[in-house]
Amino acid sequence: MIARYQTPEMAAVFAQEKRFEYMLDVEIAVAKEQAKLGMIPTKAYENIKKKSKIKVDRILEIEKTTKHDVIAFVSQVAETVGPDGRFIHFGLTSSDVLDSALSLQIRDAFGVLINDLQELTALMSKKVDKYKDSICPGRTHGIFAEPTTFGFKLAGHLSEMHRVVERLKQSRSQFSRLKLSGAVGTSSFLSAEFEKNVAADLQLKPEPIATQVIPRDRHADVFTSLAFLGAALERLAVELRHLQRSEVSEVIEGFSKGQKGSSAMPHKKNPISAENITGLSRLLKGYMLTAFENIPLWHERDISHSSNERVMFPDAFIVSHYLVTRMSALIADVFVDTDRMKENTQGLGGVMFSSHVLLYIIDKAGLSREDAYKIVQAHAHSLKKGETLKEKILADKNLMKKLSKKDLDHIFSGNVHLEHTLKRLKHFKQFLASGNETRN
Amino acid sequence: MIARYQTPEMAAVFAQEKRFEYMLDVEIAVAKEQAKLGMIPTKAYENIKKKSKIKVDRILEIEKTTKHDVIAFVSQVAETVGPDGRFIHFGLTSSDVLDSALSLQIRDAFGVLINDLQELTALMSKKVDKYKDSICPGRTHGIFAEPTTFGFKLAGHLSEMHRVVERLKQSRSQFSRLKLSGAVGTSSFLSAEFEKNVAADLQLKPEPIATQVIPRDRHADVFTSLAFLGAALERLAVELRHLQRSEVSEVIEGFSKGQKGSSAMPHKKNPISAENITGLSRLLKGYMLTAFENIPLWHERDISHSSNERVMFPDAFIVSHYLVTRMSALIADVFVDTDRMKENTQGLGGVMFSSHVLLYIIDKAGLSREDAYKIVQAHAHSLKKGETLKEKILADKNLMKKLSKKDLDHIFSGNVHLEHTLKRLKHFKQFLASGNETRN
Amino acid sequence: MIARYQTPEMAAVFAQEKRFEYMLDVEIAVAKEQAKLGMIPTKAYENIKKKSKIKVDRILEIEKTTKHDVIAFVSQVAETVGPDGRFIHFGLTSSDVLDSALSLQIRDAFGVLINDLQELTALMSKKVDKYKDSICPGRTHGIFAEPTTFGFKLAGHLSEMHRVVERLKQSRSQFSRLKLSGAVGTSSFLSAEFEKNVAADLQLKPEPIATQVIPRDRHADVFTSLAFLGAALERLAVELRHLQRSEVSEVIEGFSKGQKGSSAMPHKKNPISAENITGLSRLLKGYMLTAFENIPLWHERDISHSSNERVMFPDAFIVSHYLVTRMSALIADVFVDTDRMKENTQGLGGVMFSSHVLLYIIDKAGLSREDAYKIVQAHAHSLKKGETLKEKILADKNLMKKLSKKDLDHIFSGNVHLEHTLKRLKHFKQFLASGNETRN
Amino acid sequence: MIARYQTPEMAAVFAQEKRFEYMLDVEIAVAKEQAKLGMIPTKAYENIKKKSKIKVDRILEIEKTTKHDVIAFVSQVAETVGPDGRFIHFGLTSSDVLDSALSLQIRDAFGVLINDLQELTALMSKKVDKYKDSICPGRTHGIFAEPTTFGFKLAGHLSEMHRVVERLKQSRSQFSRLKLSGAVGTSSFLSAEFEKNVAADLQLKPEPIATQVIPRDRHADVFTSLAFLGAALERLAVELRHLQRSEVSEVIEGFSKGQKGSSAMPHKKNPISAENITGLSRLLKGYMLTAFENIPLWHERDISHSSNERVMFPDAFIVSHYLVTRMSALIADVFVDTDRMKENTQGLGGVMFSSHVLLYIIDKAGLSREDAYKIVQAHAHSLKKGETLKEKILADKNLMKKLSKKDLDHIFSGNVHLEHTLKRLKHFKQFLASGNETRN
Repeated sequence: MIARYQTPEMAAVFAQEKRFEYMLDVEIAVAKEQAKLGMIPTKAYENIKKKSKIKVDRILEIEKTTKHDVIAFVSQVAETVGPDGRFIHFGLTSSDVLDSALSLQIRDAFGVLINDLQELTALMSKKVDKYKDSICPGRTHGIFAEPTTFGFKLAGHLSEMHRVVERLKQSRSQFSRLKLSGAVGTSSFLSAEFEKNVAADLQLKPEPIATQVIPRDRHADVFTSLAFLGAALERLAVELRHLQRSEVSEVIEGFSKGQKGSSAMPHKKNPISAENITGLSRLLKGYMLTAFENIPLWHERDISHSSNERVMFPDAFIVSHYLVTRMSALIADVFVDTDRMKENTQGLGGVMFSSHVLLYIIDKAGLSREDAYKIVQAHAHSLKKGETLKEKILADKNLMKKLSKKDLDHIFSGNVHLEHTLKRLKHFKQFLASGNETRN
Repeated sequence: MIARYQTPEMAAVFAQEKRFEYMLDVEIAVAKEQAKLGMIPTKAYENIKKKSKIKVDRILEIEKTTKHDVIAFVSQVAETVGPDGRFIHFGLTSSDVLDSALSLQIRDAFGVLINDLQELTALMSKKVDKYKDSICPGRTHGIFAEPTTFGFKLAGHLSEMHRVVERLKQSRSQFSRLKLSGAVGTSSFLSAEFEKNVAADLQLKPEPIATQVIPRDRHADVFTSLAFLGAALERLAVELRHLQRSEVSEVIEGFSKGQKGSSAMPHKKNPISAENITGLSRLLKGYMLTAFENIPLWHERDISHSSNERVMFPDAFIVSHYLVTRMSALIADVFVDTDRMKENTQGLGGVMFSSHVLLYIIDKAGLSREDAYKIVQAHAHSLKKGETLKEKILADKNLMKKLSKKDLDHIFSGNVHLEHTLKRLKHFKQFLASGNETRN
Repeated sequence: MIARYQTPEMAAVFAQEKRFEYMLDVEIAVAKEQAKLGMIPTKAYENIKKKSKIKVDRILEIEKTTKHDVIAFVSQVAETVGPDGRFIHFGLTSSDVLDSALSLQIRDAFGVLINDLQELTALMSKKVDKYKDSICPGRTHGIFAEPTTFGFKLAGHLSEMHRVVERLKQSRSQFSRLKLSGAVGTSSFLSAEFEKNVAADLQLKPEPIATQVIPRDRHADVFTSLAFLGAALERLAVELRHLQRSEVSEVIEGFSKGQKGSSAMPHKKNPISAENITGLSRLLKGYMLTAFENIPLWHERDISHSSNERVMFPDAFIVSHYLVTRMSALIADVFVDTDRMKENTQGLGGVMFSSHVLLYIIDKAGLSREDAYKIVQAHAHSLKKGETLKEKILADKNLMKKLSKKDLDHIFSGNVHLEHTLKRLKHFKQFLASGNETRN
Repeated sequence: MIARYQTPEMAAVFAQEKRFEYMLDVEIAVAKEQAKLGMIPTKAYENIKKKSKIKVDRILEIEKTTKHDVIAFVSQVAETVGPDGRFIHFGLTSSDVLDSALSLQIRDAFGVLINDLQELTALMSKKVDKYKDSICPGRTHGIFAEPTTFGFKLAGHLSEMHRVVERLKQSRSQFSRLKLSGAVGTSSFLSAEFEKNVAADLQLKPEPIATQVIPRDRHADVFTSLAFLGAALERLAVELRHLQRSEVSEVIEGFSKGQKGSSAMPHKKNPISAENITGLSRLLKGYMLTAFENIPLWHERDISHSSNERVMFPDAFIVSHYLVTRMSALIADVFVDTDRMKENTQGLGGVMFSSHVLLYIIDKAGLSREDAYKIVQAHAHSLKKGETLKEKILADKNLMKKLSKKDLDHIFSGNVHLEHTLKRLKHFKQFLASGNETRN
C-alpha cells in the first residue's frame, strides 16, 4: 500500500485488519441466516456474533502452516468463539467470503472518494460563478482562438467531473455484490434464496450468476472509472499548468510562506501540485490495463487476479483519493490573475476577434465567405509588432465603406464574446440544476 | 481501415464518402434551422438540401491546396449547389461539423454492432437451454473442483455479454451528441437554443458544455466499451480453447469439408476461431489506452486526437464487429461432446465430489470441519491410478459407521450437483426474464 | 493496413503479394539446400526456382476451400511449377515459412524506417549547428529557468533520436531469424545444421531454440522499439507545439500558400504537423501493449498472436514511417524566430538569470546560500510589471557593496550562459563524433 | 512500497533512508572534486565526508516548511556538518542530485535482481539436463502436435530468460548515468569535465546531454526490461499451469505438509505459485505504460514524472524480485511426473506421430503430399475410442504394400522424435556455451 499518498480516510478502509473485519461481517451475516433456517444452532450464531474477534497476528501465524489465508482467518476467529466456532464458514468456499468482503470494502472506499469528489465539484461550481465574467483567451492548438472566460473554462471541467461522479456511483452500484454460490457458482450447497437474504442483510445485491468468483469485468469497471477520474483531473491539471507558464501567467498555485521553488533558481514558483496530479493520474491507466487482463480467468476461475488485486485495489483508491484532495486544495487556494487574463485577450494585436470580424464582414460587406476570409487572413498575417487587427481593418478603406467603426469597437472590446459566454454558461447551470446527468 | 476483418455492414458505415455524407447531414440540418430563423434565405436552404452532392475526388483535389479537409468539403459541396452554396457552413467552426458527424457515424456503427451482439446473446441463450443438464467438470485453478453443466457455463458468459450490451447502449447514448457551440464552446455565434433545435432534427442530444470539441472522455468511453466487449469474447474464447485441448476434448469447433488443420500434421483439428478471437480482442485494449491519452487536450483543444481517431474508430468497430460475427459462427456450429463431458466428470477417481462428501461427513459423522477435511483430503491425495474416492470412503470402516452407502451413491452420481445447478440456472433465467440489468 | 498514413516505400513492403514473395524466398532457399543434400532432385529445385510465381487471386481462391493460407500458397505455387511442385515445402511446417518470411519482411521495413530516420538525425544535426547560439529561455515546470539555445534544445532531442536509431538496429538484428525446426521446434525433420545453411543463404540467423514459432518476445521487442521512436518524436513534437503557442511564438511550422488554419478564424497558423505526430505516436504504445500480451502463448504455441500481428506489423511500421517523414518535413521547413527567442529570454524582468546572480552573491558577498537565496527570491518575487531583477539588485545598496555592476551586466546579457552552453554543446558533438553510442 | 511482496534484499535498496544515502554519496563525490579544484576548501570537504549523517525524521520536519525535499535534505545534512555544511550542494540543482542518486539506487536494485535471476537460469539449466529425455506431448493450439521432452520445453524458456538477463544488464548499463549539468542541462555552473570526474568516482557514465533531468526514455527502458522479465516468467508460469491441469497432470507444484488447497474441496492441489506469478507480471506492463507517458516532459522538464516514479521504481523492482524468487522456489521443488508424460504422448491413439508417418508415406509410397495427407488425415479423424493410428495404418492394405511394420514401430515408439530432440538440445547447449547472446 503506497505510504506516500495515503490519506487517513482511505488508509483506514484498507488497513490490514479491516479486510478481515469485512470478511467477518460476511461470515456473521451467513451464520445469522443459517440460524434462521436451522442449519446451525441459534445459540452458535449468537456466540459467533458476540465473541468473534480479529487477531491479525494470530491469523498470520496460522497462515504460515496452512498457506491459505481464509482458512487461517476462519481458524483464528473460531478460536475466539470457542466450540461454536466450528459453525463459522459453514458450507462456504473461500471466494464466497473474499469476494463479498471485497464488495463491502470497495463500497466504503467509493464512499470516501465520491464524498470528497463532490466537495471538489461544489468548490469548482463556486469558482465557476466567481470567475464567470473573467474574460481570457480561448486557445485551440495552443493558439489564440476566441475569448472565453475563466469561469467558462472551469465549467467545462466541472461538467466532465460530474460525469466522473455519475460513473463512480454506477461503478459502485454494479460492484456491490454478494456471492455465496460456492465452488463453481452452482449454489451446490447454499441456495440462491439464501444468498438473496444474506445480501439484503448486508445491503448488497446478489451476483446473478457467478463462477467461483464474481466475474472480473466488474472489477475492471472499477479501475476504468478510476482511470476516468484520473484523466479528468489530469485534463484540469494540464490546463492549470498551461495557465501558469511564465509567458501566460494567468494563474498561480498556492505558495505558502517559506516554501522554495528551486534550490538553484530563487525566482521560481512552480505548478507542482498540478504536475503531481498529472503524473499520478498515469498510474491509474496502468492499473486499468492490468484489471482488463484479469477478466479472462480460466474456466470457473484461476487465481491469477488475486496477487495483483491485492496491490491495485488499495493503491488505486489511495492514489485516487489523494488526487482528489490535492486538486481540492489547489482549487481552493489558486490565485487567478484576472487582469492578466484580460490583457492577454488583446494579445497579438487582437487577432482573437477575427472570427466575429469575419462574420461581420460577410454580413455587412456582402462578400462571399471565401473573399472575406482572404481579406481578414491577410490583415491578421501582416500584423507587425505593436499593430492591431482593429487598426488594420479601420485602415482598409475599401472594406470600411460597408462597415462601421462603432460595430468594430464593440467587437474588439470583448463584450460581444462575454455576452455570449455568459448566456451559454447560464444555459449550462440550468441544465445542471435540472438534475440531468451530463453522462447519459 | 483494416481490410482483412471488414464485414460488409461495418465497412459501409466507414466508407470514405460516408464520412462526408454525415457531415452533409449536419450542414443541411443547420441550414434548415437557419432558414427558419431568417439567418439564411429559405430558398438557399432548399437549394442546399436539393442540390448538394458529395464528390470525394473533388474534395481530395481541393484539400491539396487548402490542407484543411472541412474547408475542402464545404467548397466542393458549395460547387454542386451553385451561388447559394455560400450559405453552407454559416457561422460554424470545423469541429462543429466534424464532431457532430462523428456522432452520427458512431451511432450507426453501434447500431450494427449491438444488433449482431444481440443475435449472439439470443443464440447463446438457446445453447444454455440445450446444454443445461449436460454435466461436466467445473475447474478452478485448472483443477477439477465440482461438477457443473455446459449450459451453466454458457449462462455465466451470457450474463457478462448482457452487461456488455447494456454498456454499449449506454456508450452510444452518451456519445450521441450534437455540438455547434463554435470555436471555443461559448456559442459565440449560434445560440444554445439553436443547437438544441438542430439536435432534435438529427435525434441527437446537445453537448451541455464543450470546448471547440466534444470532450474526449466521451470517446474514451466508447473505446472502453469495445474493450469490455473484447474481454468478454476473449473469456468465452479462452473457455472454448481449454475445452478443445486434446486432453479435455469436450468441444470441437466447426470443421468444414476440405479444411486442413496443419500442413505437417494431418490429424489436427484446431480451435482457430477461438484463438483468432482471443488475439484480436487484444487490439481493443490498445485502442482504449490511446483513447485515454486523448482526454487531456490542451486548453480549448489541440488536434492531437484527430490523427489517431481516424485510425481507431473504423478499426476498433471493424474488429469488434468481426469478433461478434466470428463468435456467432463458432457458437452456432460448435460440436459439444456431452458424453465426453460426463465421462470427464468422473475423472481422477471422482474427486470432484469431495466437497459434498465433506459436508455430508460433517453433518452425519459429527466431526469438526478440521477433522473431516483431513480425512477426505487424505483419501483424495492417496488415490492411485484406477482407484476412486468413493471406494476409499466406503472402505473407511470407522467413517462408514455413521454414513450410508446409498447417500454416497447419490452424491457420486452427480445428480445432487445437477439438481442444484438446474435450480440456480432457473433462478438466473427468471432474473433475466424480469428485465433486470445484470450490470447495475 | 492504414491507407491514410501510407508512404509509398512502406506500402511496398507490406503489399499483399509481398508477403507471399517473402514466403517464396524461404521455400526456394530451403529447396536449394535440400537439393544439395539430395533430399529433392536438383532438377526439381531448378524448376522451382525458375518457374514458381505468385498469383494472389489464385491463392485466395484455394484458401476458400482449405481455410489455411500456407497450404493455399504452396498449392498455388506448385501449380505454376508443374510436377516438381510437389517438392516445395518438403518437411516444413507452416510456421517455419511464415515466421521466417516475416523476418525478411520486417528486416526490409526496418531498412526503410532506419534509413529515413537517419536522414532526420542528419537534418537535426544541421539545425543544431545553425541554431547553436540562438539564445532562448529554458523552462522547467513551464516556468522560466535559465537561458539555453535552440540548438542546444535540439541537441537533446538528437541525442534521444540516436538512442532510437541504435535501438531500432538492435531490434532488427535480434529479429532477423530463420526458424525451420518444425512443428514443436525439435528439428524432427530438418536438422539444425540444415537450418543454419538456409539461414546463411538468406542472411538471417537461426533461432537458437524455438517452439513451433519464433518466441514472441522478439516481436514485442520490435513494437517496443517503435513505441520508443514514437515517444521520442512525441517529445520533440510537444516541444515544438509549446514554442508555437501564441504567447511564446518562437517557432512557426511551415505555412504553404493557400493553406487555411481554421474555417472560422482567419488569423490562425496552427502546429498541426506537431499535433498530428503527437497523436499518432499514441497508437504505437497501444500496439506495444498488444504485442506483450502475445508473449505467453500456450505450450508450443497457440495461434492467437497471428490475428493481431496481421494488423499491427503493417500498421505500426506505416505509422512509424509516416511519423518520421512528417517530422523531417516539419524540421526542414520550420521557421525559428531567433529575435523573439532572444527577447523572451529577458522576459519577466530577467528572472532567468537569478541562478547565476545567486552564485555570484554567494561568491562575492560572502553570504550563506540560505541568506543569499532569500535575498534573490525576495527581489524576484517583488518585481512589478516593467521592473527588472537587474535593477532591483543594483538598487540594493547593502548588497552592492560587495558586487560590481559590470559583473551583473555580464550575467544579465546572457553571454555567460551562452558561453557555457556552447562549450557543453561542443562536448556533446565530440562525444557523437567519437562514435560512442548514447544508449549504452 | 508494496509490503506483501517485499524481499529483504530489495526492501533494503528502497528503504526510506537509503534514498538519502545515495543522494549523500553524490553530494560527497561532488564536494571531493570541488575541493580538488579549489572551488570549496579542502577542509570543508573533509568535514562533509566525515560528519555528514542522514536523519530522516529531521528531513521530514524541515520539508514541512520548505515543501522541497532536496532543500530539506541539504539543510539537515548541513546541520550535522556544522559551518562547512554550507559548501554542500554547491552549484547543484536538485535534479542533479536526485537523478544521479536514482542511478545509484537502481544500479543496486538491478544487482539484486540480476543476481537472483542468474541463479534461476542456473537452476533451469540443471532441470533442462535432468529432464532432457523425458518425452512428453508437444502441443500447438492446445492440441497434440508432436512429441518433445520436458527438458526441451524448459530449454526454450531458458533461452528467453537468457535474453531477459542480457536485456536487464543493458538496461542497467544505459541507466547508470551521472547528471550534473544544472538547471537546463547547459552546464552553466559545473563543467562537463567536472561531471566526468565525479562520474568516474561513482563508477557512473555522464549523460551526454540532458535537460534538467536525465531523459526519461532511459527510465522507460528500465520498466520495459522489467515487463519483459514479467512476460518471460508469465510464459513459463502459464506452461506450468497447463501441465498441472487435472486432465494433464504432468507436473505438481511443491505441496508442503499441512497446506490446504481449498477450504471447500479437500482433494485440491493448486498451481498457486504459477498463478500468483502470472497475475503479478501483469502489474509490470502497467508500470511500463506509465513510464512511456513520462517521456515527453515539457521543455527542459516538468515534474510530472516524479510522483509516479516514487511509486513505480520501488514497486516494480519489488514485484520483479519477488517473481524471480518465487519462480526459483517453484522450479526447485516442482514434481515432474515423467511416467504420466510418456503415457500422454501416446494419447488419442498416437496421433502425435502423424507428421512423421506422413513424411514416411510420401517417401516410401511415392504419393504426392496432397494424397498422402488425405490418407493420414482420414485415418486420424476416423479413430474411435481405444483405436490407434498405428493399427489403422497397418490395416490399410493398399498403403502397406509400400511400407514396413518395423519402420512404423520405430516411428510410433517415440524414439525417432527423442533422437531429434536430443540432437537439437545439444546444439542449443553448445550455442549457449559458446557465449553467444540469444538476444542479438
